[in-house]
Amino acid sequence: MKQEGLLLVLSGPSGAGKGTVCKELLSRNPNLRLSTSVTTRAPRPGEVEAGSYFFRTRDEFMQMREEGEFLEYAEVYGNFYGTPRSFVREQLLSGHDVVLEIDIQGALKVKDRFEDGVFVFIVPPTLEELKRRLKTRGTETEEQVLRRFNAAYEELNFVLRYNYLVINDDVSLAADKIEAILMAERCRVIRNRGLHECLKGVL
Amino acid sequence: MKQEGLLLVLSGPSGAGKGTVCKELLSRNPNLRLSTSVTTRAPRPGEVEAGSYFFRTRDEFMQMREEGEFLEYAEVYGNFYGTPRSFVREQLLSGHDVVLEIDIQGALKVKDRFEDGVFVFIVPPTLEELKRRLKTRGTETEEQVLRRFNAAYEELNFVLRYNYLVINDDVSLAADKIEAILMAERCRVIRNRGLHECLKGVL
Repeated sequence: MKQEGLLLVLSGPSGAGKGTVCKELLSRNPNLRLSTSVTTRAPRPGEVEAGSYFFRTRDEFMQMREEGEFLEYAEVYGNFYGTPRSFVREQLLSGHDVVLEIDIQGALKVKDRFEDGVFVFIVPPTLEELKRRLKTRGTETEEQVLRRFNAAYEELNFVLRYNYLVINDDVSLAADKIEAILMAERCRVIRNRGLHECLKGVL
Repeated sequence: MKQEGLLLVLSGPSGAGKGTVCKELLSRNPNLRLSTSVTTRAPRPGEVEAGSYFFRTRDEFMQMREEGEFLEYAEVYGNFYGTPRSFVREQLLSGHDVVLEIDIQGALKVKDRFEDGVFVFIVPPTLEELKRRLKTRGTETEEQVLRRFNAAYEELNFVLRYNYLVINDDVSLAADKIEAILMAERCRVIRNRGLHECLKGVL
């Protein structure tokens, strides 16, 4: 009996390093697929359909939105971006795990629409380290860094809506923990009702 | 900040191989301690106090029972056996994980008294295999095997009261899964409230 895949939602304050952890997980696990977003922005040179994005017109996007097709969506600088439910569903049904790397607001929307997901909150080891990471981006003023830091600090409260907390002091170790979380989640009784019936049915 | 250990309860129908899995886990993890039971039976030659058991008189056992000291206890052939709460607590507080290998009735009693435990239900890969394992013990009549098989079959229903289901088709793989479960449980948000506060407190 083939087990359905898991939707892994990697989230956390900016500066937590969730992108790096996500890349590490993808490089280790051929069965793990990155969620592909739908966007209304124009493809850049070299970008192909269903590569980094599914490209749709604004009208098409709005229709998908009305049909409840998005697990979450957001507008960024005039373009829309959304996570398509059908893509995720297809991957999960074919037995692949899907990872979605997303900010906290987006993750909470996904949680409302897909509560079977595995919600992991990634944090830097200390707030000092968070501040350092925000600074070393080097592209922002002191005031901008402070604003981002304060926002990240407030966002820590949302951890209580997540299933797991992973401290990203070492990318490899953080990835180990998330792989363990996926293995454990596959063993959860609530995800194995079918198996239990199946085992009894062998008689 | 030192994290408290986990109480791992390994349980399942007889013939599931939980003893073998438990030994494998103990041999891999120096931080994992086997729960030591209290018993009223006399020590056998070579058995020392706090080795396989804590040896107590019947009166002492009954007093411990009245004081609510046992996570579970049972009478077997006129002797009492119990899992002492204080031993488990001390190990957990010092950061060690504790494993308790126990039958289903015992595990459910522990669950009523210690709901923070991690309850893992171990099953053989198929009911055919369960029947084969019960038979190859070779010490029982066909009728006894059938009775044990029927009991094991009924016991499968109790899986719904557990957190995790692990299929023991391969001892090493089953142990991998349980190690992943322990790692994942340490990351659960509900076990890390203190850490969250601690992180915010750094500011």
